[in-house]
Amino acid sequence: MYYHDRRLQYPVTVEKPDPAFARMLQQAIGGVEGEIRVCMQYFFQAWGNRAPTPKYRDMLLHTATEEIGHIEMLATAVALNLETAPASLQEEGAGDGIVGAVMGGGNARHEIEGLIHKNLLSGGLAAMPMDSDGVPFNMSHIYASGNVAADMYCNVAAESTGRVLAVRLFNAAHDEGMRKMLHYMIARDTMHQQQWLAVLEELGGPSANLPIPNSFPQEMEDQANNYNFYATSVDGTFPEGRWTDGPTVDGHGEFTVFQNKPLGEEPILGPARPDSGAQDQQIG
Amino acid sequence: MYYHDRRLQYPVTVEKPDPAFARMLQQAIGGVEGEIRVCMQYFFQAWGNRAPTPKYRDMLLHTATEEIGHIEMLATAVALNLETAPASLQEEGAGDGIVGAVMGGGNARHEIEGLIHKNLLSGGLAAMPMDSDGVPFNMSHIYASGNVAADMYCNVAAESTGRVLAVRLFNAAHDEGMRKMLHYMIARDTMHQQQWLAVLEELGGPSANLPIPNSFPQEMEDQANNYNFYATSVDGTFPEGRWTDGPTVDGHGEFTVFQNKPLGEEPILGPARPDSGAQDQQIG
Amino acid sequence: MYYHDRRLQYPVTVEKPDPAFARMLQQAIGGVEGEIRVCMQYFFQAWGNRAPTPKYRDMLLHTATEEIGHIEMLATAVALNLETAPASLQEEGAGDGIVGAVMGGGNARHEIEGLIHKNLLSGGLAAMPMDSDGVPFNMSHIYASGNVAADMYCNVAAESTGRVLAVRLFNAAHDEGMRKMLHYMIARDTMHQQQWLAVLEELGGPSANLPIPNSFPQEMEDQANNYNFYATSVDGTFPEGRWTDGPTVDGHGEFTVFQNKPLGEEPILGPARPDSGAQDQQIG
Amino acid sequence: MYYHDRRLQYPVTVEKPDPAFARMLQQAIGGVEGEIRVCMQYFFQAWGNRAPTPKYRDMLLHTATEEIGHIEMLATAVALNLETAPASLQEEGAGDGIVGAVMGGGNARHEIEGLIHKNLLSGGLAAMPMDSDGVPFNMSHIYASGNVAADMYCNVAAESTGRVLAVRLFNAAHDEGMRKMLHYMIARDTMHQQQWLAVLEELGGPSANLPIPNSFPQEMEDQANNYNFYATSVDGTFPEGRWTDGPTVDGHGEFTVFQNKPLGEEPILGPARPDSGAQDQQIG
Amino acid sequence: MYYHDRRLQYPVTVEKPDPAFARMLQQAIGGVEGEIRVCMQYFFQAWGNRAPTPKYRDMLLHTATEEIGHIEMLATAVALNLETAPASLQEEGAGDGIVGAVMGGGNARHEIEGLIHKNLLSGGLAAMPMDSDGVPFNMSHIYASGNVAADMYCNVAAESTGRVLAVRLFNAAHDEGMRKMLHYMIARDTMHQQQWLAVLEELGGPSANLPIPNSFPQEMEDQANNYNFYATSVDGTFPEGRWTDGPTVDGHGEFTVFQNKPLGEEPILGPARPDSGAQDQQIG
Amino acid sequence: MYYHDRRLQYPVTVEKPDPAFARMLQQAIGGVEGEIRVCMQYFFQAWGNRAPTPKYRDMLLHTATEEIGHIEMLATAVALNLETAPASLQEEGAGDGIVGAVMGGGNARHEIEGLIHKNLLSGGLAAMPMDSDGVPFNMSHIYASGNVAADMYCNVAAESTGRVLAVRLFNAAHDEGMRKMLHYMIARDTMHQQQWLAVLEELGGPSANLPIPNSFPQEMEDQANNYNFYATSVDGTFPEGRWTDGPTVDGHGEFTVFQNKPLGEEPILGPARPDSGAQDQQIG
Repeated sequence: MYYHDRRLQYPVTVEKPDPAFARMLQQAIGGVEGEIRVCMQYFFQAWGNRAPTPKYRDMLLHTATEEIGHIEMLATAVALNLETAPASLQEEGAGDGIVGAVMGGGNARHEIEGLIHKNLLSGGLAAMPMDSDGVPFNMSHIYASGNVAADMYCNVAAESTGRVLAVRLFNAAHDEGMRKMLHYMIARDTMHQQQWLAVLEELGGPSANLPIPNSFPQEMEDQANNYNFYATSVDGTFPEGRWTDGPTVDGHGEFTVFQNKPLGEEPILGPARPDSGAQDQQIG
Repeated sequence: MYYHDRRLQYPVTVEKPDPAFARMLQQAIGGVEGEIRVCMQYFFQAWGNRAPTPKYRDMLLHTATEEIGHIEMLATAVALNLETAPASLQEEGAGDGIVGAVMGGGNARHEIEGLIHKNLLSGGLAAMPMDSDGVPFNMSHIYASGNVAADMYCNVAAESTGRVLAVRLFNAAHDEGMRKMLHYMIARDTMHQQQWLAVLEELGGPSANLPIPNSFPQEMEDQANNYNFYATSVDGTFPEGRWTDGPTVDGHGEFTVFQNKPLGEEPILGPARPDSGAQDQQIG
Repeated sequence: MYYHDRRLQYPVTVEKPDPAFARMLQQAIGGVEGEIRVCMQYFFQAWGNRAPTPKYRDMLLHTATEEIGHIEMLATAVALNLETAPASLQEEGAGDGIVGAVMGGGNARHEIEGLIHKNLLSGGLAAMPMDSDGVPFNMSHIYASGNVAADMYCNVAAESTGRVLAVRLFNAAHDEGMRKMLHYMIARDTMHQQQWLAVLEELGGPSANLPIPNSFPQEMEDQANNYNFYATSVDGTFPEGRWTDGPTVDGHGEFTVFQNKPLGEEPILGPARPDSGAQDQQIG
Repeated sequence: MYYHDRRLQYPVTVEKPDPAFARMLQQAIGGVEGEIRVCMQYFFQAWGNRAPTPKYRDMLLHTATEEIGHIEMLATAVALNLETAPASLQEEGAGDGIVGAVMGGGNARHEIEGLIHKNLLSGGLAAMPMDSDGVPFNMSHIYASGNVAADMYCNVAAESTGRVLAVRLFNAAHDEGMRKMLHYMIARDTMHQQQWLAVLEELGGPSANLPIPNSFPQEMEDQANNYNFYATSVDGTFPEGRWTDGPTVDGHGEFTVFQNKPLGEEPILGPARPDSGAQDQQIG
Repeated sequence: MYYHDRRLQYPVTVEKPDPAFARMLQQAIGGVEGEIRVCMQYFFQAWGNRAPTPKYRDMLLHTATEEIGHIEMLATAVALNLETAPASLQEEGAGDGIVGAVMGGGNARHEIEGLIHKNLLSGGLAAMPMDSDGVPFNMSHIYASGNVAADMYCNVAAESTGRVLAVRLFNAAHDEGMRKMLHYMIARDTMHQQQWLAVLEELGGPSANLPIPNSFPQEMEDQANNYNFYATSVDGTFPEGRWTDGPTVDGHGEFTVFQNKPLGEEPILGPARPDSGAQDQQIG
Repeated sequence: MYYHDRRLQYPVTVEKPDPAFARMLQQAIGGVEGEIRVCMQYFFQAWGNRAPTPKYRDMLLHTATEEIGHIEMLATAVALNLETAPASLQEEGAGDGIVGAVMGGGNARHEIEGLIHKNLLSGGLAAMPMDSDGVPFNMSHIYASGNVAADMYCNVAAESTGRVLAVRLFNAAHDEGMRKMLHYMIARDTMHQQQWLAVLEELGGPSANLPIPNSFPQEMEDQANNYNFYATSVDGTFPEGRWTDGPTVDGHGEFTVFQNKPLGEEPILGPARPDSGAQDQQIG
């Protein structure tokens, strides 16, 4: 169960509100690389964790709980950046100092409204659980497979795309307060990349973990096709690299190359059933 | 651009059709761990690849093209397993030998129809691009970030959850033909886990790649918060592990522990604007 | 069953077409607060209504049918506002009087196209069943629970957010015809808020209806936890209000405050099953 | 920001695991009436709250934080009910005592697998953020409008449909532990219904709050159409009730009835533009 | 604008309620081939129709309005088929005559609940705007392109898949009342297929309408690639048919065959930008 | 199974990158009329094709394979148009020659970023499988019904809306390279419209194919309601046309007109069940 503190994890300040930047921040809230995703992913991994000891359940709860605070920071940042967004016709005029300064004047109203549609119309100038294009977050992006190594790679992937996004937002940020907040979130993403890789190392590293799942006897998979790169180009060329020869990363085999060709036959499904809603011509 | 061969990548045979298993196979077609996902993910990573050389674009095209053949195999397997699914009332009777044999008789019709609803009603006893619960695949699961290392971890994650799924399907399979097909697909997932990890190794491994993106100067992130585990439990306890002390995985720092507390203040958004559709009581 | 009249429920005129406003109006068509939602919500509540008399089924049909006419008005308004949206390159020039006047000239083409993408590319300068960010309406927003009191509160909620949206659109409208149309729709939302609250009053008001569902014997719920506010702050503070002491709104109890603490234990799921696709380390 | 305790809010025990009931519980996790919805709805309402004082922000945070613990309880309950779900072919046999006992034997495997598809294949016998049909939760269901009264009605609606769902689950529950957990959750829903209604009362009740938003001058809405019930039946009949005559619930008017007829004309959009991708026949 | 009649378009009766069939009927309500789809598709085509005369707008309104009555019939049929669905544990026993009779007894409860999850838990034993797998209807399936010929083909497609579905439901129906209702709906689908094809004929048939849109000067399209079948098989074989030689259907050309080969070069995107969040290795 | 060639199907060049046009092109990749849709639709129709001969399976594979190359061309075009999109604050200045030239200077940064949000933030200046409003492609748009005639009409519909879209993009294109690419894609859409209509002709044309499915004995449908236009206007007027009298398109009947009226009665669902979570007032 959970507790809260009214204060924020880290300071969130905005000197010069920027509605366009508010919309960009939405990607870090409800984008597939965003904070709702990692928060809920770690929670569901924790709550469904099956293991001899509750150690990883525990650890995941710590970080999932931390992530709620990140969504909160970003939601606050969005709201602060929308402080001066126009809500009515009257503000379009020359008198609207801040909007004019931020946006360059002229056709500011349409431009801003076009950028923040739902934040204004549906959210009332606040953050919403959606991405920068207004697409609501879809919870199918919560990866929790029941396999701890697969989950850790999902987490590294999430924190890698997450930090890439945070860096892009940092690069696009005008405001010193926003850059400060983002330089903190970038740092936390660095730690979380490390954290999940540390679990994989603690579990024994590539040779122990791979292939995932390691509980399936590897001799039951097709031994002729588990370490060969399939070259599918019509001219038979392929790019050579670490994946075309030498020992495999798990140390269980050697990389080779297979010039792809069909190993099966043309499938024949045969005529449709008379009562299946097909055309007569298919029933034959 | 692309070519096809009418034959299958690997043999797909079904001796004893099983509509329930057909539905389970749908997860490997249109589930978030399925083959449409990896196929399209590798294609979009290839098509958007920016790099000094086209080497990774090339490699991704080989494997993306291979994956089309995997979707094809699974779609064929679904269709073959639905060969005897009932399409009409008349088959419910005792005379329906195969369904009776497969399902145990009795209330077979409802059970099967409940399992395969859309495959029958909408797809006409064929595969559809949806998961085992009938949820259509949503293309937001195609992760292609523009950062090659982040993409590779996304790919390892996809092939890890993909092989976990394939193993579960193998464990649930009755039919020898289906187990044969799956033992091949499990092998290909093994290779693809290796392949993406091999790229990461070729790029220099953890110390060179991390944190992702490595193009952001690490001194610009918050140095006080990039390698410390945040303990968020109210009683101050936390699980010790590879992530709480010792050198970090990237070799750039040392893990420490931070007893979490607010570093920011309570945020004050202030009253709503008069024209923002709020209640009078909020405008103050 | 249903009939139509070619004429509109209320006049819809646009003197000065405004593509950006067309996009904003989309929120009232296909947004979660929009008219498709209330129309279909009232229909499904009516069609599934179970009660001793068909009275509420009847009433819901009247209002659902009215709402079709509201979607029609808004769709017409969108089409009229898109009359002069640019469909080709050639119009970008100085000669395009109306667009120039509306948008302020200059980089008008990109701005407009960026605002109305799908209305132009997919809808051919007409309304579409999507919101102002182009997200298609998802029918999971049709709340029809089979409980008439719950449904009425869902309807009050829908008409409240709906009128908030209509007011925001009114505040953003340039055109006199649009303001006229919206001042009518705002009025209808006022009536509908009243209408659903009137049903709740007719059903006996809070003391008779609450808690919803009132058909579950209240003595079977946890009597120790049904009227206490849970304070979850780490420092034990909480905001006092109508919900922390005094009689409850239903008159069945007294509000109290509970300093939240765990009433359960740490859950132990134990090791994973050997055949479940977990890692060996989880199986223990 | 946030803290956690490893222990559960309330005891969650399962004596006789029931995979089918696990699937039903999913509705309370990721259904539109479920706990993710209320948790995130209260958080986003809090984080975006604009008001002269932070009182409602505070209160919302208390209850949002409480709700995380409810998701956790349900996720734990799902995992416990899936303890004996079959993960492989081998368990289908007569020897599987527990499954046999729970499900009545016979064709148990297909039945169970058909019920829990994704929980097994994708989640590894754990809870997932989806509903009882396997549809992932879509965050567009987080209603946070920026208007406190509209939000409170959204919350009453959510807790009403939520308690209806909890009662249905209670009625369907076999297990004493599950009934105990649900009798607690039903009680919390009772409180939360009261809590949001208490806010509305504190804000002044119907006469002060209505119509929502009350910040729009009511004289600007169409005074001829804001308190009349529209009768849309072709025969002119309509159901009489609290909504057809007498004072309105807000006390601002009198209910009347309007026999619906068109107040506008047939809309004429005219021919399509030559460059708009229409057919020649439309361009005229 | 619109009117209603409390009576149904056509009789809907159910002698022997069948919850499993109720779920199948959901496909005809909220499936992509269902009645919500055609109803809303015809409405949006009508409301956005641009043409010299309102003739097609008119006609579309007639049929769209008819379709509301079809959704109503199906929603009623679902509710009637759920009359005896179990809502509580107590009904599982031998005493539940009707369910026993319908389902064959034994483990009926789980089976039924597994089939109708959301209709019970969320809808209270009524129809919902979702398909037979519980996936909510997504309004992106409303095709209204602004081109009348394209729209007519979309409508023929919708009524073709719709009639295929209705036939499958007819074939699966037990109940005489349900077969009667479906034999009516199948007939209406027959008419609607004819109706949209009649419009295409009235517009001049293939030679006048094709290619769609016919307002784009055909000489501006690539004359070398507009009537040749691309053979993409690696071995150069292809299936001969009406599409490989002879005059084209529009009479504007002759079919030929092109052995596919690349007409373009390998695309080179070049290195990533330094500030784009890529890896250093991509920036080069 | 499949092969690839690194080269493109047709040349894709961009002289003057235009980020706004890149976003518009997204509609042709991940819009409902886009290339992912037709590619996957033809594949799933092929893989599930049941017929006496594999002829149509073969033909569909040829064209599905061709379409992969179209997605590739468009993805390349998007990436090339995003070459100069701003990724950081620094480029906003006057020095940014290309952006300034393209966009007209001034507030270019916000405008562009508003147009391409996710392509920048999530995709790293590359194409993504989503439409021009950033909505990810949803695979429920893959129509493959198991009925070959229904499928062919779905394909004609897809290629008709697809060519309409391509023409709109051509009309909006600045760049000569883009117009060249589009004039090729428009031509291929012309061919594909012909191709699917040719199949329908080969299958015997309207009289043989209709009504779809033709395998359901037409005498089993309601003979009184299969060729009459339902007039639903309250005043009894209706638009006369090819659909109101004369022989039907299939030649099986004569069109007539039916003044719509209810053929059924008011449906009575009756009171709710005591244990169904309804209100007491509904149980009666």
